[in-house]
Order: sequence, then C-alpha cells, then structure tokens
Amino acid sequence: MAILNPDRLFPVEPQARNLARELYEQVADLPIISPHGHTDPRWYAENEPFPDPAQLFVTPDHYVFRMLASQGVALTDLGVPRADGGPTETDGRKIWRRFAEHYYLFRATPSRMWIDHVFEHVFGLDQRLTPANADAAYDHIADCLTRPEFRPRALFERFRIEAISTTEPATDDLRWHRMIRDSGWKGRVVTAYRPDAVIDPEFDGFAANLDLLGAQTGEDTGTWDGYLAAHRKRRAFFKEVGGATSTDHGHATARTENLREAEARALFDRVRSGKATPEEADRFRGQMLTEMARMSVDDGLVMQIHPGSLRNHSGQIMARFGRDKGFDIPTQTNYVHALRPMLDAVGMEPNLRVILFTLDETAYARELAPLAGAWPCLRLGPAWWFFDSPEGMRRYREQTTETAGFYNTVGFNDDTRAFCSIPARHDMARRVDCGWLADLVMTGRLDRDEAPGLANDLAYGLAKNAYRL
Amino acid sequence: MAILNPDRLFPVEPQARNLARELYEQVADLPIISPHGHTDPRWYAENEPFPDPAQLFVTPDHYVFRMLASQGVALTDLGVPRADGGPTETDGRKIWRRFAEHYYLFRATPSRMWIDHVFEHVFGLDQRLTPANADAAYDHIADCLTRPEFRPRALFERFRIEAISTTEPATDDLRWHRMIRDSGWKGRVVTAYRPDAVIDPEFDGFAANLDLLGAQTGEDTGTWDGYLAAHRKRRAFFKEVGGATSTDHGHATARTENLREAEARALFDRVRSGKATPEEADRFRGQMLTEMARMSVDDGLVMQIHPGSLRNHSGQIMARFGRDKGFDIPTQTNYVHALRPMLDAVGMEPNLRVILFTLDETAYARELAPLAGAWPCLRLGPAWWFFDSPEGMRRYREQTTETAGFYNTVGFNDDTRAFCSIPARHDMARRVDCGWLADLVMTGRLDRDEAPGLANDLAYGLAKNAYRL
Amino acid sequence: MAILNPDRLFPVEPQARNLARELYEQVADLPIISPHGHTDPRWYAENEPFPDPAQLFVTPDHYVFRMLASQGVALTDLGVPRADGGPTETDGRKIWRRFAEHYYLFRATPSRMWIDHVFEHVFGLDQRLTPANADAAYDHIADCLTRPEFRPRALFERFRIEAISTTEPATDDLRWHRMIRDSGWKGRVVTAYRPDAVIDPEFDGFAANLDLLGAQTGEDTGTWDGYLAAHRKRRAFFKEVGGATSTDHGHATARTENLREAEARALFDRVRSGKATPEEADRFRGQMLTEMARMSVDDGLVMQIHPGSLRNHSGQIMARFGRDKGFDIPTQTNYVHALRPMLDAVGMEPNLRVILFTLDETAYARELAPLAGAWPCLRLGPAWWFFDSPEGMRRYREQTTETAGFYNTVGFNDDTRAFCSIPARHDMARRVDCGWLADLVMTGRLDRDEAPGLANDLAYGLAKNAYRL
Repeated sequence: MAILNPDRLFPVEPQARNLARELYEQVADLPIISPHGHTDPRWYAENEPFPDPAQLFVTPDHYVFRMLASQGVALTDLGVPRADGGPTETDGRKIWRRFAEHYYLFRATPSRMWIDHVFEHVFGLDQRLTPANADAAYDHIADCLTRPEFRPRALFERFRIEAISTTEPATDDLRWHRMIRDSGWKGRVVTAYRPDAVIDPEFDGFAANLDLLGAQTGEDTGTWDGYLAAHRKRRAFFKEVGGATSTDHGHATARTENLREAEARALFDRVRSGKATPEEADRFRGQMLTEMARMSVDDGLVMQIHPGSLRNHSGQIMARFGRDKGFDIPTQTNYVHALRPMLDAVGMEPNLRVILFTLDETAYARELAPLAGAWPCLRLGPAWWFFDSPEGMRRYREQTTETAGFYNTVGFNDDTRAFCSIPARHDMARRVDCGWLADLVMTGRLDRDEAPGLANDLAYGLAKNAYRL
Repeated sequence: MAILNPDRLFPVEPQARNLARELYEQVADLPIISPHGHTDPRWYAENEPFPDPAQLFVTPDHYVFRMLASQGVALTDLGVPRADGGPTETDGRKIWRRFAEHYYLFRATPSRMWIDHVFEHVFGLDQRLTPANADAAYDHIADCLTRPEFRPRALFERFRIEAISTTEPATDDLRWHRMIRDSGWKGRVVTAYRPDAVIDPEFDGFAANLDLLGAQTGEDTGTWDGYLAAHRKRRAFFKEVGGATSTDHGHATARTENLREAEARALFDRVRSGKATPEEADRFRGQMLTEMARMSVDDGLVMQIHPGSLRNHSGQIMARFGRDKGFDIPTQTNYVHALRPMLDAVGMEPNLRVILFTLDETAYARELAPLAGAWPCLRLGPAWWFFDSPEGMRRYREQTTETAGFYNTVGFNDDTRAFCSIPARHDMARRVDCGWLADLVMTGRLDRDEAPGLANDLAYGLAKNAYRL
Repeated sequence: MAILNPDRLFPVEPQARNLARELYEQVADLPIISPHGHTDPRWYAENEPFPDPAQLFVTPDHYVFRMLASQGVALTDLGVPRADGGPTETDGRKIWRRFAEHYYLFRATPSRMWIDHVFEHVFGLDQRLTPANADAAYDHIADCLTRPEFRPRALFERFRIEAISTTEPATDDLRWHRMIRDSGWKGRVVTAYRPDAVIDPEFDGFAANLDLLGAQTGEDTGTWDGYLAAHRKRRAFFKEVGGATSTDHGHATARTENLREAEARALFDRVRSGKATPEEADRFRGQMLTEMARMSVDDGLVMQIHPGSLRNHSGQIMARFGRDKGFDIPTQTNYVHALRPMLDAVGMEPNLRVILFTLDETAYARELAPLAGAWPCLRLGPAWWFFDSPEGMRRYREQTTETAGFYNTVGFNDDTRAFCSIPARHDMARRVDCGWLADLVMTGRLDRDEAPGLANDLAYGLAKNAYRL
C-alpha cells in the first residue's frame, strides 16, 4: 500500500498525463544536484545517527511548526528551544502526537507531500499519519534511525546525491568540510560563501565579526582595502578548502550601488565606526553586492542574491525563541532600478554569473524574466521558499518561460535544512516540470522530440552547469 | 429547460468533473452561513414585498449599473437617484428593457451567473434574458413579487439561511434587529459593529458622530478615555441587542499603529479638534485598529479588516449621485509593515481573531498567506468584491493554500446587498471549491477520503467557526 | 510535413479542444485589422523586395537578438549596427547560422511560434530550423525574397490585411503615406500620431523638435497657445493626409495632470526654456496627456497610452548600439491615482476613447479592469509586448473579463516591426481567445450560442470598432 499517488502532480487529462509520466520516468532516477541548501556539514563529517522522529520532522522545521503555531499550538509544546534556555518540551513522543493531531492542517501543502514522501520512500511507512497510528509511526522511524543504513552518508548515497552545497558564514573555519575531505568518503559536499554577517552593518556583532575576519586573514579590516582583501582571501579559502563554487547573499532588498572609490571608502569608515545611519548601512550592503560581483568576475564564484524577506515579524517570538522561527514574511521586491548600478558596473563581463531569487512573484514576468532575457550574466533561480511548491513552480514556469526561455533558468535547488526531504523536493520539481513540458507539447508550443532533453536539463543539467559544479 | 449549465464551474476533464460533482452534491444543500453582508435588516423586520424587478436587479446593484455606465449608458437612465433630487428614470419597465439590451455585456462575468441563477432558481424563468423576452420576464418577476412566498422572510427560509449578518454603523439604534427579535420570527439575523464613521476623522460629520456616540453612551467623547469607553459600550450593545459576533473596518489601507498612551491621547485631541492633518488622521485610523483589536481580546468580537479601495474615483459621479456608484477602484495594499504594530501589541493573544480581506491579489501569496500561516490570530477572508468570482476564487485557493492551508481561511461570505443573489453566490463558491478539491485529489495533493470533510468545512463549517456564529 | 501543430494553443481536453477548433475555424480567415504597429510605410510605398533572411528575421528583431545576447552572443555577431558606425557582421549567412545554432533557446517562447509560422505559412518550409538545415533554409528564403509574390504589397494582400496602422512622430512629413495614396494601390495603410518627441522635455532634441513643429504649422511654439495650436494642426494633418484614427503615447508612467491654465502656461515656459527639473518635465508630460485627451474629444482620434517601460537599462548597450536593443525592462505601473486628473477633466465626455496598455500585469485585475468597467471613455488594450504570448493573453482574459467583460477590451493588435509575423501573431491571439471561449462554454460561464459572435468580435469586430477604422 502506498501513501502517495504515483501520478501526483501530473496533468489530469489522460494524454497529457501519459506524456508527463513518460518524461518523468526518464528523469526520476537522475542524480541529485543540490547546489544551494542548509544541511549541516557535521552530519556528513561525523556520520552519527539522526535523533528521534520529532527532532527530525518537527522541532527544527519552520515550515512545520509555523503551521501549528498559526492554529494556536505553542512553540514550546513542539520542543522549540527557548532563547533564555527555559523549559521546552523534550519528550519526542509527545511532540510527535501533537504533530499527528494537527497533520490535517497540511492538506494540499508541499510540506504534506514532502513528509508523506519521506514516510513512504525513506522509512517505508504505508499509511498517512493520523493520531491513531502516530505511536506506531514514531516507533518505526525511531527504530530505523538506529540502523546504519539511516546514517547520513548512507542516506546521501541512497538519495543519489551527486553534489550538495551547504552554506557557511564567511568566518566559518570549514572544519566539517575538511573532516569530510580527510575522511576519504567520496560524497561531494561543498560549501558556499555567505558573508552577510561581515557585510551587513546591522548584523549582530558586526564589528566583532570584522575583527575575526581580520584575524583569520591577516588583513586590516579596519580599512576598506584590507576589508576587501580579507573577502578575497576568504573566498579563496572557501574555494580551496570547502570546494565552494558560489556565494550567497540574503539581503532584505536587491539594492546595489556603484559608488566612486572615495565615497565607498568614506562609507566603509562610517560603517566601521558603528555610527552608520540605517540608510548608510543599506547603501553599504548595496555597494558590497557590487564588490562581491567584481570579485566573482575574478574568481568565478557564482553569485546568488536572495532578497525580499522581512525577518522576525513577531518581536515576541524573536525575543523568546530567536531567529528563523517561521515569522519571516515576504515583501515587495523591485529589481529593475535596484540592480542597475551593479549591472552597469560589471553586467557585461563574460565570466560573471548572478542567480536571482525572489519572494515577490509579481517580479517574475514584469522584471526578472525581462532582465534575465537580456543581461548575459543573469540567471533566474527556481521558485523559492514559500513558492517551492507545485503551484509556485507552475507559476514560475508560466511567468518566466515565454520571455527568458528555459536556458536562463538554473534548474531546481531545494534550499532545505531537512536532509531526508531532499529527494522528495527534487521529485516534486521533476514532476511539475515534466507536467509543464507535457502541456507545452500537447498545446503545440514544444515539439515532442525536444521534451526529453529539456526534462533532463531541468532536472539535472542546468543546475550542474549554472553552479559550475 | 434550464438557463444554467448544471455542471458549471466544475473542471472540464471528465474524471475530475465527476469527482467535483460528487463533492458538490454533498454540500449543495447545506445551510447558508452569511457572516458578512449588507442586506437591509428592515426587510426581515417588516417583511414587506420587494419592489419592482428593476429596483430589485438593476438600480441598487453597482456591479450591474457600472457595467452599463462603462458602455455609455447614463445612470439616470437606470433610475439611479440623483444627489440633488433631480429627475431620474422611474419607469421600471424602461429600465428593465435597457438592462436586457445590454445584458450581453455581462457574458463571462459573475453578475451574469448570479442573475441567471436568480432567474432560474428564485423566479423559475427558463430563458436567458434578451430584448425579445424582456417584457415577459419583467411581468413574471413583478407578479412573483406580489406573492407571499417571495417576501423576505419566506425567501430567507427557502434559501436555508442559518445565520446572516448585516452591518450597521456604531451609532445605529438597531431598531430593525430589535423588531426582528421581538417579532418571534426564528430567522437568525445579527449585526456587525462598523465604526468607520466614528473612527475616521475624514468621514462626513465626524465630530457630530462623536457627539451622538457620547449621547448614546453617556460617555464624554471629548476625551480619549471617554471615547474608548463609548466604543466599549456600543460594542456591548451590538453584542447584546444585535447579536453581533464581529466588527468590520473599511479603511483605505491596512495601517496600524501602537502609540504610547500619551501620544494617543494627544493625537485624539488633535483629531477631536478637527485640526488633524491627513497624516494625523491616517495615524489615528491606524491607532484605532489596534484599540479595536484590544477590545476584541476582551469581548471576543471577531475583527474584519477590509482595506484597499479608493472610493469615488469620479468626482463628477460623486457630486451627481453620491457614494457607492461603481467608481470605487482597488489600489495596492501592503500588509506586512502595516499590520506589524497591531500584531506586536496583541497578535499572540489567544482570544483574538482578525480576518483580513484584500483587493490586491498580489498580497495573497506574498503577504497574506505567510502572515496567516504564522500568526495565530490571523485568518484570511475569502476572495472579495471584484474577486468574488470563479477566476478570483480559484486564484485565491491557488495562491493561499500551499502556505496557509485551508484552516487559516474562513470559508465563504457573500458581502452583498442583493438578497436574492445570496444562494447564487454561495453556490458559486461551493462549486469552485469542490472543483479545486477535485483537482487536488486528481493530482495527488489530497487523498480522496479527505475531500468530503473539507468540502463541508469550506461550504459551512469554517465560516461558522471563524465568525463564532 | 508541417512544422506547427494544427491544434496548437487549444485546450487539451478533447471536448474543449473540439469546441475551440470549431470556433477558430470560423475566424481563422477573417481579415486582419492591425490598428497599432511599427511596420515601415516605406515598404508599402516603394514595394521593394525585403533584404536577406538575416535582415528579415534576426538583425532588426529585438525579441530575437536579446535572447541570444542573454546567452552571451555579441550583438555585433548578429549584425546589429553600432552607434559609432564601427564594424558589425554583414554576412547574412553567418548571422543565420548563429541564429540556427541558438534556435533551441526559443523553445516555448512566442518568438519560436511566430517564426515557425512564418517559415511554414509564408515561406513553405517544412522542418524546424536546426544547424543542419540552416543553409538550405537560408537559400530557400533568400530565393523567395527575389520573387514578386514576396514583395510587401503582395504579402499585404496575401495576409488579408484590411487595415494597418503605422506610427509616425508628430513632425513626420508622411511622405510614404502620401506616396501610397497617390499610387492608386488599394491597401489601407494609415498612420498614428505619436508626439513623444515634442511632448517629452527629456527627449533628444526637444527644443529643435518644437522649432520644427512651429515651422511646419506656422504656429509660435514658443508660446503655450501656439504650441497647443500646432498640435491641433498636426493632428488634423495626420487625419487628413495619413488617415490617422489614433494617437499613441509612450510615457514612462501613466501620470496625468490637470493644471489650472496659468500653471500650465508657466510650466510650458519652464520646459521651453530647457530649465525644467525632472519633476517639472514629468508634470508636463502628465499635463500633455490631458491636453491630448481634450483634443481627442474634439477631433475624435482614439488615444493610446502605453506606460511602464524603463528604456535602455544597460548604459553600455545604449552607448554602443543605441535605443531599442532589447534592454527595455518593465516596471511597476499604477493607474488609479495617475489617471485621475485626466479622467476628472474629460473622462465622462461621450466622444472620448482612451485605450490603456500595461507592462505590469498586476494592474489587470486590481486597477485596469475596475477602471475600464466603470469609466465610459476607457478601453483595455490587449496583452502587450512581453505579454503578447499564449500565457500572457490567457492571464489577460482571466484577470480582466470578470470585471470589465469583453466589450471594454479592444481585440488584438500586433504592435510589431516584423511584417511577416503579423498573420502569425493574429493567429496566436485567435487561437488563445477561441480556447478561452471554449473553456468558458465548457464550464457553463458562456452559452454555446454566444461563442461564435464573441470569437468574431475578439478577432475582428472589436478592433475595428475601438479604433474607429
């Protein structure tokens, strides 16, 4: 017995469905390229068992606990750690039962499909989670987790992951990546350079972060030149030691600047002094995107820009539980004016590649597809975060393909902390894309003979190429 | 012979259509919960016959006369009353003929489907309205209206309305609600507290409205404390005498404020003096949303926020015919920053429920679903006004479900002044929702056994629960 | 053998597809009304052969070369002329081969379908373009172009063009239109009055343009009165000599103004002096839209407003190749506040007709359909530029029909410089609209007997009527 419908996410009309299924069967088992994600490299380094089912599925997954919170369940009842170290639920089984009681809330959400996929394909369960079978499912999963074939490296291989990227702050020592490399294990785990904490003057501990960056590189991060040199050295370190092929930038907006050098210097001094106004801090972030692009021209790291999230919308949740607790809310994001300074500075450089993401879908057809359909350095990242979903992926294709085509997009990336859900997420993307290709063929917008190659590119080739993996 | 296609609004693919029909058949005859609307309580109180067909279908319905106006028909030719009391068409039959001549303009609009539904199901007509059959239809409807089974209470019962909410200004004496209650009739008609005229400093007669509010409550509405106390008393009156379970706030934007008490006091004094600037007036409206939310925490009234309409876009129409003449146009509405002060003040209060509506569909996926999928007090109102339509409802589900699920939505409400169209509107929503559920099942995003319960919730249960009816 | 799928763009479900095909067959061969475009009147005047295939399909088509540029192909390798007159590729066959190598980039784009349509229907090719058949296709097309039946007038007739509008600047001498008229050829080619260069103070050579306008009209364009009088005379000239029925306004935004006369005079003086600030220049553009509307009330020219493109996003491309090189990017456009001054001034005038276009699809449902569904002077132009595509047209219908109906839209216009693609573009629109009508009938939102007339209106009647052709 299966939990999942084997024809899920294919078009409903029988001919289109058959075609989608044919295309999907050719790509379903392709290796996974996961070029942007947030799994913990320590897992692959130490290869310890994962903890209990609640710790695997509920407590760390903000997609999951935010939905329960939205219906009044307290985060402490789901084991979410408190910022003050105060009491929170520690009984995995109790958390699991609460999860099962509220599992109906996830109907028609991507979380439901991912979790069902993990239940069925990773753990071999054959019934949808209910309050009635919650304990049995808990016991079964807990038992699996004790076995060697459920350790991180075994799952990595079982999932057919060809390459996965984690994301580390600029000052990370990459110890887990070194440990992986030194272990002789063949799984390819690379890092990505995420310098937000040393670029954003409003980040917690910004000054101390710059001091550390200086200490790590032997550069004087009290000066603009030393600060830039330190970035260059850390980027080289991330490439060499962590195998990085990309950088990642999570700014609130897509603002870029291209200041004259004297202005940039003066701005850095203001920022370094801790006296920058919010506008100056924002300008500095904008300037640094252009500086990062300049460095990418030199070192070839693919640049990812992820703007548009207003973080920690609830002050009370932030104070009580800290960051990343499901209260990050998208806002309007404009790209056309915002990216122009950077693009005018380096946008025609042949070696530059910038991948744009959005949480504002109105930008797909209006701004992002027209930009990526003209500027040679630009590529569109896949539907992201709240839009990493069947409807989200479909809207993405419908709104970008006609102007940017397929080859200005970069395939799928899963962007997840939930390791076991990686195959589920790639499977979802492959199904939706094959459905989209089938509809294009059925409506005469694509020839039948063109579809298989495209399905392969969307599932595998584009990501590998775009991220230079 | 039927005017309407019995399979209307179901998916086209035969399997999906069959499933949608099965689901629909189980909910088609459920009682109607109409928790937000603008029917006149006097109808139910006095139970007098409705006037002639033109007065029932054309003259008071801004959905209808705006479409004819957009093609050059003068509002006076449709009997719309002039602000100066000057001449307007009074011959119902002439108005009706003009309506019939232009009925083709409504092709593929929800108005067409609502009106056809009323023709067929309420009045038993069997042909689409044309200039040729206009007189016969007029005579038939006019004849019906003279009969007892077409009086308001008889229709209320025939429509299987379990509960309906009207909307009254804060200073209304609720005489019709009292008359209904005193009559012994069992129909449940409740009011909703709509305080715009005593909250918006730019509302016509604001100062006089506050004086009246003071007189009604015995509170000194010249002071901030007295003003707030007066609101509390009126809310209690609306609950007790009118059975209110909700409040309704039609601000131009979703702006909220959470001022320190001294600031709020000073702002009230400015506003009360009539000297507030537009910005101060707007800040006051924002502050009052938070005050209303605080009162809702105490008295349990469900709070509805309906922002985003720019009223009376044509100065000439406003001068000649007054408000609500089809020239209210949606504008961009942002919720993320706007609601934050209110949410930070009371957003985690377990007893608070705030229902958000929008006329800016771009907010569904970007702002509203992420907000409702995190904050426990928030729920999403259904597709509203211009979007109370098959395409509008479909976009609503497609853009909110994956992030907010179904249980952060509140079912359907009809929001109408057109009493006879209420069953038509609920029928439309039930069909569209069953079609959406059928597509979810067909694409493996929902299990077949989950669909009937959800159909019931969307048609009935969610509205009853969300509005505490 | 055919390149194109004969059922392309119809719904996939067989019943809906059959119905769409039936409707399409009745409109497929209707004459073409092309009321807004950018073909060169010189072609019809001189009736010379078109140049080589690369010059016909690649070098002048910004839809085509922007896509190749986005993947790193240099514009000079496609023969795009340099602003400095420097070297660019002149070998048509080499350009063609580069085009063929990259033809896969256009998969699922409208350009692909238009070009395939021209290949098959205009030139009789029977294979999709590939690197392998590129030379043969080139030779075949080049040979065709030498033959009389491929000259502009012969194609015009073969395409069943009933009327086509070109677009000329206000100071154009309309020599080609006169030459066409004087030639005795019966093809109807009219002009449209495009005064951007004499309205936009920031346009290159604005002062000289106004001097020329003065010289052409004998009016003193150094004064506000003379300037307005000169416009009136040129509009009359465009009507009389060029058969114009419309004006066309390509402003960056939809801003309008309705200044008091003294203010308008003073603003003109500032603008005429060359000292206007950017804000003053923008206000002047806004004022002139209202002035143009006033003149349209008098002379009956239909007014077209096309806002929302940020031109020449790449400074480097602009410097190297000039305007219109694929780097025009849409931006957010708001209509509700922007159009209000103009509408309050003349929006209820019975003779006024204003057609609105957008590059910001979020305005369809939120602003444009509500505006056009109320104001009698407003009509909605079809999906435009990046949205002149199957998905774009479908979103347009889905988001405008329910509020504005069909009769506040104006049918299709192709807006193209690519003469041979005109039938392809109209065919695409007819197919998409017939598919939409079929879906409406299948879902009971339109009666079967209403569909054929509507299909005819959408393909032909509405454009003819809306543009007074």
